[in-house]
Amino acid sequence: MDQKSLRVIVIGGGAAGISAASMAKTVAPEASVTLFTEYEDVAYSPCGIPFVHGKEIPDFERLFLQTSEHYAEIGIDLRFKTTVTGIDLNKYTVSVGSEIFGWDRLIIATGFEYEEPNIPGIDLEGTHYVKNIRRAMEFDKTLDQIKKVVVVSATPLGVEMAGNLAQRGLETHLVDEGAWLMSEVADPDIMEPVQKSLEELGVKIHFGTKVHEFKGSNGKVKSVSTTGGDMDCDVVVVATNKTPNNHLSREAGLKIGSTGGILVDDHMLTSKKGVYAAGDCAEVVHGVTDLPIQGLSGSHAYSQGRVAGANAGGDDRAYDPVYVPWGMVGGNVQIGGVSLGETLHKALGIPHTVAFAQGISRARYYPGVTRIRVKLIADPKTLRVMGAQMSGGEGIKERADFLSFAIKRGATLHDFAWMENVYCPPIGALMEPIALAAQAGLAELAKKK
Amino acid sequence: MDQKSLRVIVIGGGAAGISAASMAKTVAPEASVTLFTEYEDVAYSPCGIPFVHGKEIPDFERLFLQTSEHYAEIGIDLRFKTTVTGIDLNKYTVSVGSEIFGWDRLIIATGFEYEEPNIPGIDLEGTHYVKNIRRAMEFDKTLDQIKKVVVVSATPLGVEMAGNLAQRGLETHLVDEGAWLMSEVADPDIMEPVQKSLEELGVKIHFGTKVHEFKGSNGKVKSVSTTGGDMDCDVVVVATNKTPNNHLSREAGLKIGSTGGILVDDHMLTSKKGVYAAGDCAEVVHGVTDLPIQGLSGSHAYSQGRVAGANAGGDDRAYDPVYVPWGMVGGNVQIGGVSLGETLHKALGIPHTVAFAQGISRARYYPGVTRIRVKLIADPKTLRVMGAQMSGGEGIKERADFLSFAIKRGATLHDFAWMENVYCPPIGALMEPIALAAQAGLAELAKKK
Repeated sequence: MDQKSLRVIVIGGGAAGISAASMAKTVAPEASVTLFTEYEDVAYSPCGIPFVHGKEIPDFERLFLQTSEHYAEIGIDLRFKTTVTGIDLNKYTVSVGSEIFGWDRLIIATGFEYEEPNIPGIDLEGTHYVKNIRRAMEFDKTLDQIKKVVVVSATPLGVEMAGNLAQRGLETHLVDEGAWLMSEVADPDIMEPVQKSLEELGVKIHFGTKVHEFKGSNGKVKSVSTTGGDMDCDVVVVATNKTPNNHLSREAGLKIGSTGGILVDDHMLTSKKGVYAAGDCAEVVHGVTDLPIQGLSGSHAYSQGRVAGANAGGDDRAYDPVYVPWGMVGGNVQIGGVSLGETLHKALGIPHTVAFAQGISRARYYPGVTRIRVKLIADPKTLRVMGAQMSGGEGIKERADFLSFAIKRGATLHDFAWMENVYCPPIGALMEPIALAAQAGLAELAKKK
Repeated sequence: MDQKSLRVIVIGGGAAGISAASMAKTVAPEASVTLFTEYEDVAYSPCGIPFVHGKEIPDFERLFLQTSEHYAEIGIDLRFKTTVTGIDLNKYTVSVGSEIFGWDRLIIATGFEYEEPNIPGIDLEGTHYVKNIRRAMEFDKTLDQIKKVVVVSATPLGVEMAGNLAQRGLETHLVDEGAWLMSEVADPDIMEPVQKSLEELGVKIHFGTKVHEFKGSNGKVKSVSTTGGDMDCDVVVVATNKTPNNHLSREAGLKIGSTGGILVDDHMLTSKKGVYAAGDCAEVVHGVTDLPIQGLSGSHAYSQGRVAGANAGGDDRAYDPVYVPWGMVGGNVQIGGVSLGETLHKALGIPHTVAFAQGISRARYYPGVTRIRVKLIADPKTLRVMGAQMSGGEGIKERADFLSFAIKRGATLHDFAWMENVYCPPIGALMEPIALAAQAGLAELAKKK
């Protein structure tokens, strides 16, 4: 297709949409690229919001990464506060109310929405979802005037928010049905230092506790009724799981996968030729299990958007199955991993062996040294590592990146056990904790033989 | 051989000797294991010494990692202040003066010595070498009474010492013949932030400057005469290159390699059956160039000692060629890499292409974010990465470990360019700097085509 007449439309202004639009314009500079977003802003970092609430970051303005002018300059037609109301796959159009826009290539990057718990009172004023930056700014003003917060669900976001709100000096309760923090993604032994850190910050954690109802007066939330009793509060942060926002795609007739994400191939192409999807609204292939997965990081959204945008612009790029390195800070502890943890391997019935050790991040006499827990989950026959979980004081993100890269390429416990590592007192211990974990795992297996 | 009658002798009480003795005892618990060291101590961390001088670590006692009793408990016969004066390979003995000790397996771990520059006055009182902890304790007391230090050679140790001495408040001059810091191992663009940091700490750096003579009065050093003029000083730190300490081995008739290190096979076995060598006194194979190399880190010494000790005890273990991840702190900047840098690739005439980018260690709005420079040196035909150099504020050691592991396994610029990475504002940026470097390198290559 001639670039000059190519019309690319992008729906959604998050990481996936913005990178898709930018990449389409890079690959096909003469194409027209239009991006619709229902919000007032693009190109800010929603992941930074909890840390502004926690006063770690001094203001919301810093979260903006690009000005709108930047996108005009590179030739992207950005339409703010513009909600796409329909997609017509046969007519190659999208509608915004009564207006109709034609496209040759469509990129859907409609992101996620929070699972709305089916709980009475969920719509009361004061029940807050962390997503849009303008709402976050409003919410932050509210936080100055209140004392007591209940955070619902110890998801990664719930853990981040609880820590930051406690740090800010608010009485913070974290309510979760599980038996430990982030029980759907992380292992209890890995999360134990995070729990300790949150408690030191003053967070009151209520495990095994289900929310029945949000109660209010004058339309404002005043308390949360749970299986563990009633809790007074001034606001509630609802940090439930994220689900793909795919209403439009579903209505348009695009195929939806088993996770609820839009089905795409390895080119981020949906079931309709010329239509791509990227980011939290789509599902991709998980490299270890071959199962579909959705709801990854901003970095994943960005990369997927780049592939979708490049292909929409006429290039031919593939997106690999994902191994999902992840990392975050809970309380003052870094946690992270790759693929699934021990708990999920058990739950899914995947045969596995566990290699665990506690190492240190610097020479043991060096100021700032912290303990690092590393757990590697390996195939008991081939000893190929399938997943990892870690917690500690520093270097968790870099280790997760490393392990993800190595796991993708089939590294075994033997490979890690005898790896070379940097030794320098202020930045690295004599023995890398990953190597110690692999050695311990091999020693355990040798004993069993 | 029957374990009960097996006699293992280890010469040297550094990382290699200690790990060799411990591992021999682990593998052959009933063997007799004797370790001779000419010093008063074993099992301390010499790498920590510069940081005690810099007051980063409060006292020397912390550098001791194990008590002598520990080794007695695990059954190692430690002989302190005992200098082995000869090895007889035919009679299977070592001599300590007139005393003779028989062995069935001998492990040589005699470490390194500093290249003694052939400079008049080098033996004056006040010219100090960083090695033995007791001498360091004495030197530290001297530092309390003086004002001005000249550090000779901007080697890794020279850079560490200069930064720490300046931090302590001493007027510190760093004299080097090269045109930039650590010019024999690192690239100028990578070292530039270190130079800036050292200068901010007050270090006066004299590049392109050769030392002619150390001048003194009453046997004490008082000034350093250089091609750049005379410099007054109270003490001199001689931080010249390290060379293998192999006088005993050479006299005994063991084969010595081209680097001056004892020649060993992949089992750390020397040219004489039953005799092993490990650590700084030996040379090993460099994985990228296939050339011999010596003078690596304490972690390498430890690992080599472990292999030598295990084999001496009757096990069968191999030591892989090395890719040499390294890292350190110069001033307040972390630097590190894997294998050779750009300068050495050029000097050795190895065809290469360079991929460079500057990334960031956290979200760009997050407090504590620092710039990270990453340079990957790749084979221009296969795009396999052969080496790396980095500098930045955090995570350099973990990245060097990662790159070393990946380079050993043949990773290409393509593999790194599209790697998955953790994104989380306080601990990781949207795009991993290693990926940015690889992307930039590929873009440069595409332009040239």
